[in-house]
Amino acid sequence: MSSSTFFRSMLTTIADRGRALVRRHGPMVEDLLEDAAKLMPLSAKGQPKRDLPTLCDTLLSGRGEASGVALAGQILDQWARLDTAGQRAFLLDLAYRFGPDPIKLDKAINAYRAAPGAGTALALHNAAEARRQELFRRLNLAPGGTEAVVRMREALFRVMADAQGVEKQALEAVDADFSHLLASWFNRGFLVLRHIDWTTPANILEKIIQYEAVHTIRDWDDLRRRLAPADRRCFAFFHPQLPDDPLIFVEVALAPDIPASIDALLAEGRAPMAEEDATTAVFYSISNCQEGLRGVSFGNFLIKQVVEDLRAELPNLRTFVTLSPVPAFAKWLARERGDEASAVLAAADKAILAALDQPDWQRDPGTAATVSPVLLQAAAHYFLKAKSRGNKPVDPVARFHLGNGARLERLNFLGDLSPKGLTQSHGLMVNYLYKLDDIETNHERYADKGEVVAAAAVRRHLKAESGTDEPKPPKPDKTGVSKRARPATDTAPPPVV
Amino acid sequence: MSSSTFFRSMLTTIADRGRALVRRHGPMVEDLLEDAAKLMPLSAKGQPKRDLPTLCDTLLSGRGEASGVALAGQILDQWARLDTAGQRAFLLDLAYRFGPDPIKLDKAINAYRAAPGAGTALALHNAAEARRQELFRRLNLAPGGTEAVVRMREALFRVMADAQGVEKQALEAVDADFSHLLASWFNRGFLVLRHIDWTTPANILEKIIQYEAVHTIRDWDDLRRRLAPADRRCFAFFHPQLPDDPLIFVEVALAPDIPASIDALLAEGRAPMAEEDATTAVFYSISNCQEGLRGVSFGNFLIKQVVEDLRAELPNLRTFVTLSPVPAFAKWLARERGDEASAVLAAADKAILAALDQPDWQRDPGTAATVSPVLLQAAAHYFLKAKSRGNKPVDPVARFHLGNGARLERLNFLGDLSPKGLTQSHGLMVNYLYKLDDIETNHERYADKGEVVAAAAVRRHLKAESGTDEPKPPKPDKTGVSKRARPATDTAPPPVV
Amino acid sequence: MSSSTFFRSMLTTIADRGRALVRRHGPMVEDLLEDAAKLMPLSAKGQPKRDLPTLCDTLLSGRGEASGVALAGQILDQWARLDTAGQRAFLLDLAYRFGPDPIKLDKAINAYRAAPGAGTALALHNAAEARRQELFRRLNLAPGGTEAVVRMREALFRVMADAQGVEKQALEAVDADFSHLLASWFNRGFLVLRHIDWTTPANILEKIIQYEAVHTIRDWDDLRRRLAPADRRCFAFFHPQLPDDPLIFVEVALAPDIPASIDALLAEGRAPMAEEDATTAVFYSISNCQEGLRGVSFGNFLIKQVVEDLRAELPNLRTFVTLSPVPAFAKWLARERGDEASAVLAAADKAILAALDQPDWQRDPGTAATVSPVLLQAAAHYFLKAKSRGNKPVDPVARFHLGNGARLERLNFLGDLSPKGLTQSHGLMVNYLYKLDDIETNHERYADKGEVVAAAAVRRHLKAESGTDEPKPPKPDKTGVSKRARPATDTAPPPVV
Amino acid sequence: MSSSTFFRSMLTTIADRGRALVRRHGPMVEDLLEDAAKLMPLSAKGQPKRDLPTLCDTLLSGRGEASGVALAGQILDQWARLDTAGQRAFLLDLAYRFGPDPIKLDKAINAYRAAPGAGTALALHNAAEARRQELFRRLNLAPGGTEAVVRMREALFRVMADAQGVEKQALEAVDADFSHLLASWFNRGFLVLRHIDWTTPANILEKIIQYEAVHTIRDWDDLRRRLAPADRRCFAFFHPQLPDDPLIFVEVALAPDIPASIDALLAEGRAPMAEEDATTAVFYSISNCQEGLRGVSFGNFLIKQVVEDLRAELPNLRTFVTLSPVPAFAKWLARERGDEASAVLAAADKAILAALDQPDWQRDPGTAATVSPVLLQAAAHYFLKAKSRGNKPVDPVARFHLGNGARLERLNFLGDLSPKGLTQSHGLMVNYLYKLDDIETNHERYADKGEVVAAAAVRRHLKAESGTDEPKPPKPDKTGVSKRARPATDTAPPPVV
Repeated sequence: MSSSTFFRSMLTTIADRGRALVRRHGPMVEDLLEDAAKLMPLSAKGQPKRDLPTLCDTLLSGRGEASGVALAGQILDQWARLDTAGQRAFLLDLAYRFGPDPIKLDKAINAYRAAPGAGTALALHNAAEARRQELFRRLNLAPGGTEAVVRMREALFRVMADAQGVEKQALEAVDADFSHLLASWFNRGFLVLRHIDWTTPANILEKIIQYEAVHTIRDWDDLRRRLAPADRRCFAFFHPQLPDDPLIFVEVALAPDIPASIDALLAEGRAPMAEEDATTAVFYSISNCQEGLRGVSFGNFLIKQVVEDLRAELPNLRTFVTLSPVPAFAKWLARERGDEASAVLAAADKAILAALDQPDWQRDPGTAATVSPVLLQAAAHYFLKAKSRGNKPVDPVARFHLGNGARLERLNFLGDLSPKGLTQSHGLMVNYLYKLDDIETNHERYADKGEVVAAAAVRRHLKAESGTDEPKPPKPDKTGVSKRARPATDTAPPPVV
Repeated sequence: MSSSTFFRSMLTTIADRGRALVRRHGPMVEDLLEDAAKLMPLSAKGQPKRDLPTLCDTLLSGRGEASGVALAGQILDQWARLDTAGQRAFLLDLAYRFGPDPIKLDKAINAYRAAPGAGTALALHNAAEARRQELFRRLNLAPGGTEAVVRMREALFRVMADAQGVEKQALEAVDADFSHLLASWFNRGFLVLRHIDWTTPANILEKIIQYEAVHTIRDWDDLRRRLAPADRRCFAFFHPQLPDDPLIFVEVALAPDIPASIDALLAEGRAPMAEEDATTAVFYSISNCQEGLRGVSFGNFLIKQVVEDLRAELPNLRTFVTLSPVPAFAKWLARERGDEASAVLAAADKAILAALDQPDWQRDPGTAATVSPVLLQAAAHYFLKAKSRGNKPVDPVARFHLGNGARLERLNFLGDLSPKGLTQSHGLMVNYLYKLDDIETNHERYADKGEVVAAAAVRRHLKAESGTDEPKPPKPDKTGVSKRARPATDTAPPPVV
Repeated sequence: MSSSTFFRSMLTTIADRGRALVRRHGPMVEDLLEDAAKLMPLSAKGQPKRDLPTLCDTLLSGRGEASGVALAGQILDQWARLDTAGQRAFLLDLAYRFGPDPIKLDKAINAYRAAPGAGTALALHNAAEARRQELFRRLNLAPGGTEAVVRMREALFRVMADAQGVEKQALEAVDADFSHLLASWFNRGFLVLRHIDWTTPANILEKIIQYEAVHTIRDWDDLRRRLAPADRRCFAFFHPQLPDDPLIFVEVALAPDIPASIDALLAEGRAPMAEEDATTAVFYSISNCQEGLRGVSFGNFLIKQVVEDLRAELPNLRTFVTLSPVPAFAKWLARERGDEASAVLAAADKAILAALDQPDWQRDPGTAATVSPVLLQAAAHYFLKAKSRGNKPVDPVARFHLGNGARLERLNFLGDLSPKGLTQSHGLMVNYLYKLDDIETNHERYADKGEVVAAAAVRRHLKAESGTDEPKPPKPDKTGVSKRARPATDTAPPPVV
Repeated sequence: MSSSTFFRSMLTTIADRGRALVRRHGPMVEDLLEDAAKLMPLSAKGQPKRDLPTLCDTLLSGRGEASGVALAGQILDQWARLDTAGQRAFLLDLAYRFGPDPIKLDKAINAYRAAPGAGTALALHNAAEARRQELFRRLNLAPGGTEAVVRMREALFRVMADAQGVEKQALEAVDADFSHLLASWFNRGFLVLRHIDWTTPANILEKIIQYEAVHTIRDWDDLRRRLAPADRRCFAFFHPQLPDDPLIFVEVALAPDIPASIDALLAEGRAPMAEEDATTAVFYSISNCQEGLRGVSFGNFLIKQVVEDLRAELPNLRTFVTLSPVPAFAKWLARERGDEASAVLAAADKAILAALDQPDWQRDPGTAATVSPVLLQAAAHYFLKAKSRGNKPVDPVARFHLGNGARLERLNFLGDLSPKGLTQSHGLMVNYLYKLDDIETNHERYADKGEVVAAAAVRRHLKAESGTDEPKPPKPDKTGVSKRARPATDTAPPPVV
């Protein structure tokens, strides 16, 4: 109640300040620099600025303690002024000069070996910690420090892209420290789930447009169509230190059944349905927003939290499902088609699939009808049999959802007719089903045994030998999946499994 | 502007939920337990609950990944039900079973020794990390996890109080892991400074009453007198995950000059001054609130942030000063008085100080006038000469402020006439001055050379031999310290410079 | 969602400003005065201030239009400085000099009589409007204007209390204009219902303590007991222009059945019940807060809104009932006891009731048992038969609830043992039942026919002839609610005392 | 502080509810209808709905009191379902059946004539009040009532547009009642000024795009250019009952001096200036948003409040000025050019102005240079001499700003090269100066004497006889108007005065 509103306004202090600074002075840290200057010993005034590594040493030393906030700001400011070469140089400094102290580490190893125990192990742990970890923690003292560290890691990625050999290894150690720290700071316990809708501030919506990575948002009208209708939802995770910048978001459509086509779902003229009539929530787009947080996992938590929230809001919802792209399918299929020894495709199949090389093949109903069973059979192989390193499925989206405990529910022929969809997967889309009661078991089957948990309808494609295997509507199950899976508005040729 | 209000409401999600759960079900985690139960494999249902260490192992294993939030909640719930013995047992489990894996650690040492480098050092660091650190991070997935970890450390302190020998050492290693993680989570970058006043929610004010550690707040009327008047301020640091619970707070009085007496400052009948006439901000009480965050330092940041905020709000403020207790003085003085070889007190001094043993000695103006110079001379010794281990001053409050870069500004005879004040320091209070331009230098002088930075007026007491050393008003300096430092309401005997 | 948070912060502008002004300058309007001074014509500067009625004339004239806000502030400031005599003089000025213009009114009457129609009637309406109505509307231009007008009416009440004859009549016309305008400004459409609980800001809670008019709140602990437990609720209406000052509030207890005793309800040691187990919401205290809004009716709306909100929050609630005082009963009964021709009390009854004159009569079980049936029979007369002017019940609380469409549900012997309760009603309390389906019908029966809608159990007391109808005190149980508390829908035999 | 955040969240209750209803059920009042149905007497159930006027009678009668909120909702719901003919019929009912009661009015006149006095005048005022006024007040009981009444008045305007004679008069009386009530409800004291910027919720920004009436906002990018840069501001008034819908807003540019051209001001590529360097705030667009509030004046208050706020935020601002269109100039000039007896234009002038009939005349520097002095001379006449009815200037924008106490500061030749600008004023724009010290005097000169207060530079154009009257830069005055009035970005030939 009102103490939560107290809390609300409580959290704005830093955000407001940061924004005011940015607004007034461009590089936010200008001010901090001046403040820092005031705090510096007289002797330092009027002298050339201390260089970045020296400042970092000072910040790490006890001596800078009294003015830690100012020093951290000063470092971030100098960092912000660096060009690419300067950034590279500093990051290499971090790699070479701010690792663990080898002498201390050696001593700690000896002490541990001499008397292994809780205390010596702890001391060894501390001695083996790279000094830059503490440096990053202290940089976080400055206003905007958290974001600055995230952005610094993005710069590291750019530098690493060109690095090689030992240098690359050294930078990877820096990245490991970034990664460790950011995983702790962006722990799920610190994230906040927020509903994004048409009443969300424009500066945040603008970022949704920018970050959308699955089905491009063309403009504000397109955005409005995804947020404003009663049968649409959008949720994002935020962190208190990046209040205007989402970490990850998911777009949701409420539907009467499991949809097979993104085109129907996003059609401009469509009539929204009443939200309380919906039985199915469709996650049709999930986008990570912060490159600097690569490897810090949010998607699993996001989906489960959203499922929970939607169930509380709309008790009629019984099915939670994705409508997902199949990003690596076309590439994999091309390989199989070119592989004379393909275990997946027979010569006859390859002949049929040759149609895929014709432009606009999908517009001809006859061609589509011929291609459909062969392509779906291949797709079943792609998901169920083909494995990448680590005995995981080839498809990255599949790895994500299966790892979350979802089930591969259905293959949707020609579900995405956009150029991107045709290019990456010949229009194929799939649904992953999140059934709460099965998530843990599914996850275990996948994680322990590498099993791809899939509905019978998907597995059936594997052995689909004849054209008589007329695509059948998915069988209803207790989760409320409807008998007619094809969206009502979709009157096009057989798009469905 | 409005995106900050967006942010405000954004942050309430978790807080609201937590509170609603607590309200409805008492132990918040009941619900989570049930949720977790749903997510557990069928085989587990109806079976006896898995014990706490097993659950922790599951949470740490990959297998529990899909239901991490639920598992974390379940662990916290079982923890919440433990009695003291159960807590002790679990904390010892943490100590003995969740340290680093000795075999992996051994291998990592060997690998590092074989080829010292960034990669092997990093691997060694990871191998030396106690498994409980990752456990604590995963517990933080659960709603309320951050607070639960703080409270768990409080339980650890209680257990440690009775522990000895090896057991104690093992628990200290657990504490080191808590401490490391909490320092990272409660990094200054994540803290939010909030103004506390008479419009603050009652559930938070109630905690201010409870946590005040310096000058007891007797009741709500007393609280009102400290918050509502125009010449009073109070600031606290909060963390987003403990939105209703301050971490530390400071009470501030606006004043025309440096005050010498807490009694005058808090007098019931006093007339507030106009805030824009104030030249001096007096920090008269600073209290840490969370025992579980012991060792995580907030005070330094708090004072500096408050100085900055007050300067922005009230440009007339030029002096920032404390009015501080002297908690260890009476004990130290008793020792000196009992020490025949005391280098501080001559026999004549001891004779005069014998008056201190008379009840209500301070009420007799003659006695007070006689005691004053001797006691102040002793106090000057106490601050400037007496040292505890580490070559630091005996007085803990002095160590805090001097470490922050403040200067010991003035000794105030009979500044605190409360029973507590008379008992702990014979009524003595002191002022520490925070002068922004000198903080860094002061800090260095103190940290590097162990020097107690003090005003001349304080140092002068060291050699004050005669009663003729008529207390003089403090000399004005550029910081805006007024010429008449004695508060107007103070008509008592020479309270001193 | 976030646009509502936008709205939230939107509304604070004025509130914050007002508060900042008050805080800095005491009389908020100081500043406005200065602003107004700047806006005044040069000729006016340096001259004696224009008097209040002149300023009001200026504000009403077109000439002041450009500086209306400043002028309004100036008037409110001068008003705030007036002593009682000055206030009286100004209010009489309002009465005599700011009524309708008699010449214009005369012309408008003539015009209407000459050609009755929409246009001339409208013109007549305008001509008959007292000029002070427009004045009050323009005073509302100033920050804090709404509250100032409310307070001005409170001053009017004080002046009216001593006025007589023509003067009184003239002031009553002023009051009619205040009343008309305030009813429009404080229209239910502009009110906001808010939950008051232990997280509400202290400055508002302090007003709850102050305004509580039924069962005194002794201190903050007492307040906490009424707000913090899970089975307690409190709701208040606020107006955007008086954001820190409630207009009316109601305290609610959740209970397992209809309670008979306020003492049990508010007992210090009681154990709260789980809110979801409650079937009954008990309105045990309703207090109007603003004397200056006398006659503007909020209670009816408040109760109905709260019923609606509670039903939404707690679907198990089925009974909504008051536990109400009977403020005029003892006085009425004394009259009947002293009336030799009383139609209510027989001589034998009077003899029994003589016990009421003994101190602590209620502590003797025998006396209480004897008094009970006679007193309840008299009470039934008091409610069902005795009428004040306008054919309404004598009891003001009864008039309020019956007018709202509630039903008199039960008489509770010795329901309030506080000194106030014993003095005003010999401890009698009653319940009024709000049954949504019957409210309209009940209201009509009461409003049209003057019928007091009462449960059979109440009506039965009228003819209670025998002492065998042994009134039994409700047996206390641990929740403090009586065992015999059959809900109101119960038309069965004598449920109680 | 936090009680203002308390207040913030306090105000959302109604807003949230309204929005939730709208979202779920389309016509918000569906629900209310059902609630009302429940409250209606049994006899009414299952019967045909009562018609609208009957419902209104019930709402006005005492009988409906207990269910006023529900009845009001029911009426608004039925109103919302009416087609145009039905609306017309109901509004005529309001006109004919809900005026004052003629018999009561007659009696009240007689009583007043018999004994003129405060009491009888008040009774007469009440009797002359149309019953629909109370009806409107009671409709406001329903959630969304305020907005519904505003929208009802918009419907009235549509009906009035086609009405004639007596019917029109009757509807005008209805409008007078709407107008009276809305002026009271939308009193400046109840309005809230809010900053609109790029962090404002999209649903509100969308309305800014829609309502902009002066310089069309083409799309979201155009909007962003007006809101996001550091040297732009936008402010709007809101009312608590229409939280998502602005009443009026003003767009402001911060500038180094008084600008002469809207094209330069809104140019896409322009470089924003640092806000703290700005000396001039330019109000370049003011738009009223609510047709239903026609005649309720907000602009004067808005401008003055914004001036005050900007001065507080940016102390360097010294000049507050508009850059305004001249909407009626081209039409007036055409009349003068066609008038053989024109006192304004000599034959030679007309010959020169014939160039205006050539397309793109303004693109030829020679033509522009020839036209400039003649057109400016005519414009000076237009502003200073030409008068419409009521002895006011012809130009509506001039009437608004002069009525506010502003001064006509400068004529800007070719300040607006948009098609609209060329059509309505041959590209002419003007500046009105708001100088706080002069506002009251200016207003008086204008209001009392009909004087158009104008700078010497404007008046000089009146007598500009020769082409030698080389346009001079405006003379600086104490208000901080810079010597170089031409915007820095403007490098074109003399566009100015």
